[in-house]
Amino acid sequence: MRGLHCDGRSIRLRRDLQDPAPKSNRFQTVRVSFAGICDTDLQLARGYMGYQGILGHEFVGTLSDGRRVTAEINNSCRVCPVCLNGRPNHCPARTVIGIVGHDGAMADHVLVQTDNIHFVPDTIDDSEAVFIEPLAAAFRVPEQVPFGPESSLAVLGDGKLGILCAWVARLHGAKVSLIGKHAAKLALSGADIATHLLDEISALRRRFDVVIDVTGSASGLATALTLVQPGGTIVLKTTVAADHALNLAPVVVDEVRVVGSRCGPFPTAIRALAERQINVRPLIESVYSLDDAELAFEAASRKGAKKVLLRI
Amino acid sequence: MRGLHCDGRSIRLRRDLQDPAPKSNRFQTVRVSFAGICDTDLQLARGYMGYQGILGHEFVGTLSDGRRVTAEINNSCRVCPVCLNGRPNHCPARTVIGIVGHDGAMADHVLVQTDNIHFVPDTIDDSEAVFIEPLAAAFRVPEQVPFGPESSLAVLGDGKLGILCAWVARLHGAKVSLIGKHAAKLALSGADIATHLLDEISALRRRFDVVIDVTGSASGLATALTLVQPGGTIVLKTTVAADHALNLAPVVVDEVRVVGSRCGPFPTAIRALAERQINVRPLIESVYSLDDAELAFEAASRKGAKKVLLRI
Repeated sequence: MRGLHCDGRSIRLRRDLQDPAPKSNRFQTVRVSFAGICDTDLQLARGYMGYQGILGHEFVGTLSDGRRVTAEINNSCRVCPVCLNGRPNHCPARTVIGIVGHDGAMADHVLVQTDNIHFVPDTIDDSEAVFIEPLAAAFRVPEQVPFGPESSLAVLGDGKLGILCAWVARLHGAKVSLIGKHAAKLALSGADIATHLLDEISALRRRFDVVIDVTGSASGLATALTLVQPGGTIVLKTTVAADHALNLAPVVVDEVRVVGSRCGPFPTAIRALAERQINVRPLIESVYSLDDAELAFEAASRKGAKKVLLRI
Repeated sequence: MRGLHCDGRSIRLRRDLQDPAPKSNRFQTVRVSFAGICDTDLQLARGYMGYQGILGHEFVGTLSDGRRVTAEINNSCRVCPVCLNGRPNHCPARTVIGIVGHDGAMADHVLVQTDNIHFVPDTIDDSEAVFIEPLAAAFRVPEQVPFGPESSLAVLGDGKLGILCAWVARLHGAKVSLIGKHAAKLALSGADIATHLLDEISALRRRFDVVIDVTGSASGLATALTLVQPGGTIVLKTTVAADHALNLAPVVVDEVRVVGSRCGPFPTAIRALAERQINVRPLIESVYSLDDAELAFEAASRKGAKKVLLRI
């Protein structure tokens, strides 16, 4: 089969790959229809975490019986203390589709863990369904940090995930400010969300109950610390691989909470898309064939690019 | 009057100071009986935060009518949005006794905000009452992070505040491990608390629901991140003035919460001392006269020193 392979330094479309075969009924094969390129993919393609294998963890496809599905990406053992404690996404023995030790979905077929499968209703089309995984990650935030109509919330970073986080916060009734570097991307957030360019935020000092850092930049936390009010919460939504010099004294003096946030609830994201609570179509930049995956990665790497999709 | 003055670089006992006089009934004068030297005082004496004035924020004394009192240290305006929102300890206009813009208690007299005064029962003697402020800071942790008999909790740092935090956690039923560099200080924690030398903790990796960092060291958070389990909480209890290189990726990947923690509930600390739930006497190193305050600071600075008190 075809698959976009990462050798730990660069990517290359291969056509000589074996179809994956499930070793037990714990896994099933999904024939992939669409996959999305996310910033993590761009980082992995450049060598982040030394990943070697097929990329892709945002996808939709069909089971052998034709039903449309997507799947959560953490393959966990379900029997260790962490899993039994209700945190399978943190299973120390886990693999992660397209990220850690498990081939991803930018290929004709991908193996998914049976109990990670979610059915996709007909009201969500393939190009929208690719957003289920990142939208679930955005819905993780209100699971961890309670907020509502009484809350002022800032999202720092106007990338795809930043805009999804802003929409989810708005859906929960929060007063939302989206802060970023690109006027065109800020404009995508639509009505009901205040937008600010990053270099015009001095008036917003200490104004927010919750700040979500989706900058993907090592300096994001320091900026977030200037925006959050004493006793407030900063959610760290993107990993930055590098060490960064940081003064944590404000965290203590202002009793700030810093909360790491990763994967979220697929059912919530599927419902929000199916019920048109959130419309992800304005976030789509372009669609490429898997055969042009390398061109697609170039397009996704361009400054200000929205979500680039691969038709498999 | 006498007072231990810090000029922003060093300390000196002065005998030529004006008695403080309250400008309104928002403040009252306390005649100080005892004051404690804490690590923050040692840092301020070396120039931390550029504080200039009289040191001392752990103290007990008497009002003009002879009643024994101590006082909370944040003098807040009580009328700004932060105060009215129930967070007077974070008032942006606050001064802090002996730390920010308000003369401290290592002097014959100190001004305290009237609504910060707490009466000290006769069952708590003066040398114990000096611990009310740091013990309240330890009781701040369970206000912010719920834990109980089902929780495994590590305290990282075997200083006075570390041991107080361990005792408070034990009082809440948690299974407590105290980790530090000094066998003699670890031994002070008493029965019911497991103790570990810092260089013998490799087996404790990812074992704790809650880790309280009271190291006062910039490397404390990195160590705490190795001890906490995925989804767990790290409480930062001491400020470190310097920038420090840190990789925050584990915070996101493991969805750790990092919670800054500062001043706590005086009534809870007073009750715990009065009811002998916590016995602070083993933490007292020695008592000096205020006249020998400079010697007392030398004693408090010695490696492994317990709490040094000043008799005023």
